[in-house]
Amino acid sequence: MSQVFYFDDLEIGQRFVSGSRTLGAAEIKAFAREFDPQPFHLDEVAAEKTLFRGLAASGWHTMALTMRMLTDGGMPIATGVIGVGGEIAWPRPVRPGDELRVESEVLEITPSRSKPGQAVVTVRSTTTNQNGEAVQVLTAKLFAFARR
Amino acid sequence: MSQVFYFDDLEIGQRFVSGSRTLGAAEIKAFAREFDPQPFHLDEVAAEKTLFRGLAASGWHTMALTMRMLTDGGMPIATGVIGVGGEIAWPRPVRPGDELRVESEVLEITPSRSKPGQAVVTVRSTTTNQNGEAVQVLTAKLFAFARR
Repeated sequence: MSQVFYFDDLEIGQRFVSGSRTLGAAEIKAFAREFDPQPFHLDEVAAEKTLFRGLAASGWHTMALTMRMLTDGGMPIATGVIGVGGEIAWPRPVRPGDELRVESEVLEITPSRSKPGQAVVTVRSTTTNQNGEAVQVLTAKLFAFARR
Repeated sequence: MSQVFYFDDLEIGQRFVSGSRTLGAAEIKAFAREFDPQPFHLDEVAAEKTLFRGLAASGWHTMALTMRMLTDGGMPIATGVIGVGGEIAWPRPVRPGDELRVESEVLEITPSRSKPGQAVVTVRSTTTNQNGEAVQVLTAKLFAFARR
């Protein structure tokens, strides 16, 4: 089993890198049909005439895949990747064929004042494409527990 | 066709309500298997021993369903629901059988200084369960265009 981290094992500035995931047009459209059925996520021709100028993944699809990469070892917190909330931005569209990966950096570790053994860890997870360009930046507040 | 809105049709404080969507355990687990395979989203028994004390939907599943309710008329912007980014929080878990709906309120309308006819509209979309309790609060910045 790979190494996992409790909050008292983490340090500010510590970085983690996920595995990668390549996203195809069929997958982009299938997610969109279920959760975000707008023309720029569903159809290449219709997408040409929109702000995106071509098929692009739903931002929530990028986010869901980012979560999968984080839970598959990209953010190895011992008790899981449990978000209280966060901020998200999509600086650039995700296109069919893009290969995504996630690099995470620990920004803050705030032990709970009322609940000993618990903390909130703020992590910035940047999802990049095969050219190293950021397609999503998530700054998440994650629950973490102390090593017992 | 229902009424749709350009940014110059919108007012601060204006509210929109989506249709509703009921979420079952099978759907919670199917989303989790694909995007967030952690015990509290996959298995009732395993979930009992976690922070969630029972099966709960992935926050990103709640978000994806919220997006579907917004695109199905919950946030009727003429050119689509196109997010630049936003903030998200999950004050309470979503449980199997919960009936969700989304109420959105326009908080800010900021016309672009460099691109006439474009604006960023800040919208707070609160997803509630059948008891009227907030399960997710999304404050999103959305692209919008002027009526031509």
